[in-house]
Amino acid sequence: MNLTPKSKNVSKWYNEVILKAELADYSPVKGCMVIRPDGYSIWENVQRIFDAEIKKAGVRNAYFPIFIPMSFLEKEKEHAKGFSPELAVVTKGGGEDLAEPLAVRPTSETIMYHQFSKWIQSYRDLPMKINQWNNVVRWEKRTYLFMRTTEFLWQEAHTAHATHKEAVEEAERALKSYIDLYKNHFAIYGIAGIKSKSEKFAGAEKTYTYEVLLPGGKALQAGTTHDLGQNFSKPFEVNFTDKNGKLDYVWQTSWGLSTRSIGGLILTHGDDNGLVIPPDLAYLQIVIVPVLSKSKEDTELISKSWEIKANLEKIYRVGLDERQEHTYGWKLNELELKGIPVRIELGKKEIEEQSATVYRRDLGTKEKVKFNNLEKYIEILLKDIQDGLFEKSREFTKANTHRVGAYDQFKEIMRTSRGFIEAFWCESEDCEMKIKEETKATTRCLPLDAKTEKGKCIYCGKESSRRWVFAQAY
Amino acid sequence: MNLTPKSKNVSKWYNEVILKAELADYSPVKGCMVIRPDGYSIWENVQRIFDAEIKKAGVRNAYFPIFIPMSFLEKEKEHAKGFSPELAVVTKGGGEDLAEPLAVRPTSETIMYHQFSKWIQSYRDLPMKINQWNNVVRWEKRTYLFMRTTEFLWQEAHTAHATHKEAVEEAERALKSYIDLYKNHFAIYGIAGIKSKSEKFAGAEKTYTYEVLLPGGKALQAGTTHDLGQNFSKPFEVNFTDKNGKLDYVWQTSWGLSTRSIGGLILTHGDDNGLVIPPDLAYLQIVIVPVLSKSKEDTELISKSWEIKANLEKIYRVGLDERQEHTYGWKLNELELKGIPVRIELGKKEIEEQSATVYRRDLGTKEKVKFNNLEKYIEILLKDIQDGLFEKSREFTKANTHRVGAYDQFKEIMRTSRGFIEAFWCESEDCEMKIKEETKATTRCLPLDAKTEKGKCIYCGKESSRRWVFAQAY
Repeated sequence: MNLTPKSKNVSKWYNEVILKAELADYSPVKGCMVIRPDGYSIWENVQRIFDAEIKKAGVRNAYFPIFIPMSFLEKEKEHAKGFSPELAVVTKGGGEDLAEPLAVRPTSETIMYHQFSKWIQSYRDLPMKINQWNNVVRWEKRTYLFMRTTEFLWQEAHTAHATHKEAVEEAERALKSYIDLYKNHFAIYGIAGIKSKSEKFAGAEKTYTYEVLLPGGKALQAGTTHDLGQNFSKPFEVNFTDKNGKLDYVWQTSWGLSTRSIGGLILTHGDDNGLVIPPDLAYLQIVIVPVLSKSKEDTELISKSWEIKANLEKIYRVGLDERQEHTYGWKLNELELKGIPVRIELGKKEIEEQSATVYRRDLGTKEKVKFNNLEKYIEILLKDIQDGLFEKSREFTKANTHRVGAYDQFKEIMRTSRGFIEAFWCESEDCEMKIKEETKATTRCLPLDAKTEKGKCIYCGKESSRRWVFAQAY
Repeated sequence: MNLTPKSKNVSKWYNEVILKAELADYSPVKGCMVIRPDGYSIWENVQRIFDAEIKKAGVRNAYFPIFIPMSFLEKEKEHAKGFSPELAVVTKGGGEDLAEPLAVRPTSETIMYHQFSKWIQSYRDLPMKINQWNNVVRWEKRTYLFMRTTEFLWQEAHTAHATHKEAVEEAERALKSYIDLYKNHFAIYGIAGIKSKSEKFAGAEKTYTYEVLLPGGKALQAGTTHDLGQNFSKPFEVNFTDKNGKLDYVWQTSWGLSTRSIGGLILTHGDDNGLVIPPDLAYLQIVIVPVLSKSKEDTELISKSWEIKANLEKIYRVGLDERQEHTYGWKLNELELKGIPVRIELGKKEIEEQSATVYRRDLGTKEKVKFNNLEKYIEILLKDIQDGLFEKSREFTKANTHRVGAYDQFKEIMRTSRGFIEAFWCESEDCEMKIKEETKATTRCLPLDAKTEKGKCIYCGKESSRRWVFAQAY
């Protein structure tokens, strides 16, 4: 397969493994990528799991136009400033020049809140909680598969509430749902916190984030939720009559999770041999591979394989590779590269012993398991893989999180291993900017569980009370 | 609610019922609409049902860029001619003029087949069957909610095969899956057939269609599948080495179903009182409405309502309307308008008699059902509603299908009631065009079960052997 080892060069490995394992491909459109079936199936699993969560929380799906009149984007000042350099603009439609150019949505606050203002009249219409699974476009010059592409897929939820308190609760609830998704399904550890003023979403009052540390020592903003205050409801005139007959503007939130998360997944769990996909998000959780010999014995092997498949697929996503045009060794390599969590090998010996050889991809270990014990064994194994991957991610993050008191040390870490750095910061934009210029590290977040302590800003030495997490962003 | 009766003015009723029942709304972007949660949930049900079918047939989901370089669209001549007048074109990205403008995809043949040519080398890579659920843009000046919008949602599947025979089988299998979807879930009758040369998809060898007759007497092309032959594989150089080592171009199909289908659903089943949604596609199949009096008795009513809900929602999608801010009468009107298939009314009397009043939306009839018989009753009722709606659709189509031998009669029908017209046609484009100019009727299809007979072309009188179906298209 000629895969560059991850341990040797992470970013080279990353591009290669995505292309070779057929998760995605470059496209002829600059900045855009193609998500191939094996990659898209991970997104489908994310959608299935998270869409159920969204609905439980009373959020309903809808669909809004991909085009946004330029004048809409300009209504909220910070929002306009944040997104205007990244826009793709339609200037011709149906063979004619358009009177007002249309932006391809970089996010949908403006087009949705225009509609909210028509739909919301009274407190009876609140809360309004609407989500869409869609594509958005933010112009990029250089593509980094999954992590940075001009077009990407995501869900963006937008809610409107009668009080600020309710909106904050919703933003925090949504953050928690992202944390649960990452921990329980992506098997990825991270730090939940609040963004600094300069790093928050363009137009938000406050941005909550789940920050993940990836191999190579850079941080991924893995999911964000925003308390929008009344920043959009005022220019878009989303107002309502409250229970006392008083007119007020609604309080809003928005929150999104994108296909970048798949980039984080690949980087976090993969190893020198290829992908390692956690069972919850794997297209196939188990693949059965009979050792075919093109002889009469194949019949029994194949029939046993189908029997095992039929049993297991009552609960799991199971594949069976009975192709004759590829060798047994080729198949094992492919499953290794594609990161299928569990492989069941079945040969003549296994039939004789009435047991299967069960291989787990994450540890690379094998065990013989009696046929009649297989279902129980797989149940425990898949849970163990899922938990083990999360534990490994947690340990990696802990091992690469540095509590630093001196700026020299800060710079040294950023020059070498990188990672999360916990340091006091005076919360001035000036220090934040200089640290970024000098080390590439940005403030990732103020952890939700940060204590108030006495300390000195890592840059200017001024008295500071809280340690922020710094890292270089993806 | 002041809804214009359907029986009085179908198209006025159609717009009003969509807006009032909150299925969709106009947007500030010309030609684009917003699909609201109650409308989108119908699409989600369609997706859930049809996505499972797609996967059973071995088709896998993927995602391709929304942007298509203009040069790609021009590679297949007929395709380019068909779509170029409808394009939205991005000419600016990231603040700069683009060297090559990008079309917003009107359909994805060209961008996908470019990729297919990279992925397909050998017969081992075939068949390749890929689908995407996405948004496409075809410029429209006038919006007709769901039926004609600049942006719409759909699925587009694209397959590549080693032989023409296999491709034809796939196009026919896909047509059958659309027919099943319409009959069994949309409860809509239609005629399956083949498109004439002028009406087929731009670039196809042959287009299969399912044509539905809607109230008002116009026809909806409800789902189409295309045998593309080698029309795209040649210009896009999608070739493969066959089992004998010979190089050949692949044989392709594409097939799509869009949110227009929801327009067909609304028009087919709705009545003077509002929507009528078939149980299979309804967001909620059953809504329980307790008759609240703001007294102590409410407690028992509400607790019984929740008990019934808990039982039914093991199998069905069930709502419970216990809002105090709306009157009982208001709630019944809303459920009527929204076309909820079954309503369960629960008042003091029902508790005394240990029975619920069950209302079916399609017939407007009520029945008292003992609590302990409710689950069994609902099971039979929902099936009866689903079947009854299909039967009604079938009867409507049969009653409005006219077998016509004289052009005067043809013209008279098109001037008055419209509908499907079965008539001999010599299959010359000239007659087809003139009939369209004079009557607005186009050839909808040659039914798959059309017999070879002796007859005379309805327009020119030349000897003809097959009756085509004509109608005015939506």
